[in-house]
Amino acid sequence: MAFAYGFSSLAQAMRPSPIRELFEVIQRPGMISFAGGLPDPAVFPITQFASCASALDREGRVALQYGASEGYRPLVDFLCDRMSRQLGQAITPAQVIIGSGSQQIMDMLGRVLLDPGDVVVTEAPTYPGALHTFRNCGARFALVPCDEKGMIVDALPEVIARCRAATGRPPKLIYSIVNFSNPSGACLGARRRPALAAVAAAHGVPVLEDDPYGELRWEGAHRESVFSHAAGGVVFASSFSKILAPGVRVAWAVGDADLIRALVVLKQGLDLCSSMVSQVLVSEYCHRGHLDEHLPRIRAHYAGKARAMATALARELPAGVANFTPPEGGFFFWLRFAGVDSQAVFERAVERGVAFLPGRAFYPTAAETVGPPGDGSACARLCFTFADPAQIDEGCRRLAAAIAAA
Amino acid sequence: MAFAYGFSSLAQAMRPSPIRELFEVIQRPGMISFAGGLPDPAVFPITQFASCASALDREGRVALQYGASEGYRPLVDFLCDRMSRQLGQAITPAQVIIGSGSQQIMDMLGRVLLDPGDVVVTEAPTYPGALHTFRNCGARFALVPCDEKGMIVDALPEVIARCRAATGRPPKLIYSIVNFSNPSGACLGARRRPALAAVAAAHGVPVLEDDPYGELRWEGAHRESVFSHAAGGVVFASSFSKILAPGVRVAWAVGDADLIRALVVLKQGLDLCSSMVSQVLVSEYCHRGHLDEHLPRIRAHYAGKARAMATALARELPAGVANFTPPEGGFFFWLRFAGVDSQAVFERAVERGVAFLPGRAFYPTAAETVGPPGDGSACARLCFTFADPAQIDEGCRRLAAAIAAA
Repeated sequence: MAFAYGFSSLAQAMRPSPIRELFEVIQRPGMISFAGGLPDPAVFPITQFASCASALDREGRVALQYGASEGYRPLVDFLCDRMSRQLGQAITPAQVIIGSGSQQIMDMLGRVLLDPGDVVVTEAPTYPGALHTFRNCGARFALVPCDEKGMIVDALPEVIARCRAATGRPPKLIYSIVNFSNPSGACLGARRRPALAAVAAAHGVPVLEDDPYGELRWEGAHRESVFSHAAGGVVFASSFSKILAPGVRVAWAVGDADLIRALVVLKQGLDLCSSMVSQVLVSEYCHRGHLDEHLPRIRAHYAGKARAMATALARELPAGVANFTPPEGGFFFWLRFAGVDSQAVFERAVERGVAFLPGRAFYPTAAETVGPPGDGSACARLCFTFADPAQIDEGCRRLAAAIAAA
Repeated sequence: MAFAYGFSSLAQAMRPSPIRELFEVIQRPGMISFAGGLPDPAVFPITQFASCASALDREGRVALQYGASEGYRPLVDFLCDRMSRQLGQAITPAQVIIGSGSQQIMDMLGRVLLDPGDVVVTEAPTYPGALHTFRNCGARFALVPCDEKGMIVDALPEVIARCRAATGRPPKLIYSIVNFSNPSGACLGARRRPALAAVAAAHGVPVLEDDPYGELRWEGAHRESVFSHAAGGVVFASSFSKILAPGVRVAWAVGDADLIRALVVLKQGLDLCSSMVSQVLVSEYCHRGHLDEHLPRIRAHYAGKARAMATALARELPAGVANFTPPEGGFFFWLRFAGVDSQAVFERAVERGVAFLPGRAFYPTAAETVGPPGDGSACARLCFTFADPAQIDEGCRRLAAAIAAA
């Protein structure tokens, strides 16, 4: 990109998201895409949601006017009630802010917490959108290794110490996708949750517990949030994107009231408030009880697709070709190839009509990493929610052929 | 604000918006408010807008899914067509981005253009939300004086030279509200428009031509945009907030394709895309032709309110007490008191049940100003769009009493 008048340092350091870079590939005729992290539009509650538009008529003077930067109060109240039950403690409106998707929650937190050069601790691998957003706040990254139980919390003190040694400051944020992580599908172990809260508090580092997928569990037992084990330093964030629809761009954060107030003041300068039209529609949908009616339906729908992908992968990929653990919820399979580079597999795969996201996308560059950089070159993220079961079956067949050819 | 874990420099420098600070005052029973810049909900096209929700049913799979960061394509196409006519040159989709209100357009431009300490040139007085947003990008400010024809463009070269001398760099952006400025109500003179484009180009400084009020002219002749006089360095921004409804949070920018691409990449990390639900509804509303049907109605409505305020002010404020020029469009009267401090008037005014925004809110602090700071202490902004005509009448009576008592 060039602009005759010159860009800021931030703009010069930006990179398009990996999905955007693959956009043309994914759009090719006949392509089966496991690449994006898109919900299945077949389970969008379109008719129910559209019928909530009677609220736009009834509440038109509010829905069409500027709203509070904190969020539309009836929706905030709904979330307080829901979060109080989910997080096991009374949550008040002063602890809640509504944002335009979890992406904006991350951007806001990054801006009120990070100065350029500050370090964000992330899981390795982690969500590329988080890297993009925190990079835009001037962040560098320190990586905590993960296993099938998510972040190896025992390794966290050493990561923090290394960051202190390298930069003279502690990291400013720990970012964790605790349930059915994007990309790994892993769910943070029950005993690791209080441990994460304790290590973070002991080192004075706040945590962003990003949980868009937690309500999409179809197997195994619910695990308590990290937030519920902490005393103030954890921000819990979730979103309607995966449980209702991403097009509404409505997410929320729960945290320390002073921190939330800073996010509110910042948000006045970002967009004044999130779409009131969206918020009124989502609020109406929730207050009518549709959300809880809808959740079992999407859980069953995605469980079926996950089983289809597990079955197809097990059939197509002989033992030793790729390892994976079928997830108990969420959107993703994480494959680890044996001795094959995922970028090479990707190139063979798109020739054969199947796309996925190679593992490198889930790691920061070595230059922006404090401490050892991660290596995703043997890994791949497969999203199972968007394709239909027949496409999942055929896509895994094509993937196996691509691995063999790589 | 305090947060046990520490805030970024940005968060420490933030200040709540002036309107937010007045929130409790404005909410008092019986208070007549000329303070906020709110459109009149009585002219929201509630029924027509709500009826557009049939598009949520028809286009549900798109409206509820993630969308392109550039914006919903049918709405982008509508805007290209409208902007091509309005700006007098063919505008292509690559030159357009949709944002969540003009506030987000400003934030995005600030982030791709400004490094901390860079200077934004603004009119004196200017919109406090612009100061808030650019401050959040680390900006300092340089002020160009204004008269009843808006920015005194002849003074601009000296402001730029002073900025170069003080900082060693040119300013990174010139911010101008060209039509019916917030707060002054002034409309940039027809001859000043090509001059602004020429001076900015000669000094290599891009311009943000912020034009939310341009279509709300009820008197005088339309003036051509600064954009139409420039060759690449001007970003034209406008919004549905004042011509349809702010609750949709949909605005747009038109500019150099490379700059727009940078905004698109940035926006992926801000919120991925603006509410698709809002965009689909606004697009449906526009494509049904409702916008052009609606505009004459709100113009007439606000013209009536502006006349009511001009009449009441002329009757209540004897010559020499306050000067003002009735605006030909927009939302605001700008009063200049003779020998009275507007903060003192404000305090007497709220005791008497009328609120406005004292002039200091429209200037950066001296500490963040490069060159001579402005002084709004004799001025006040009165918004005439929200109150009804009887309130306008009574509010101006109370204001006169407050001036007499100050």
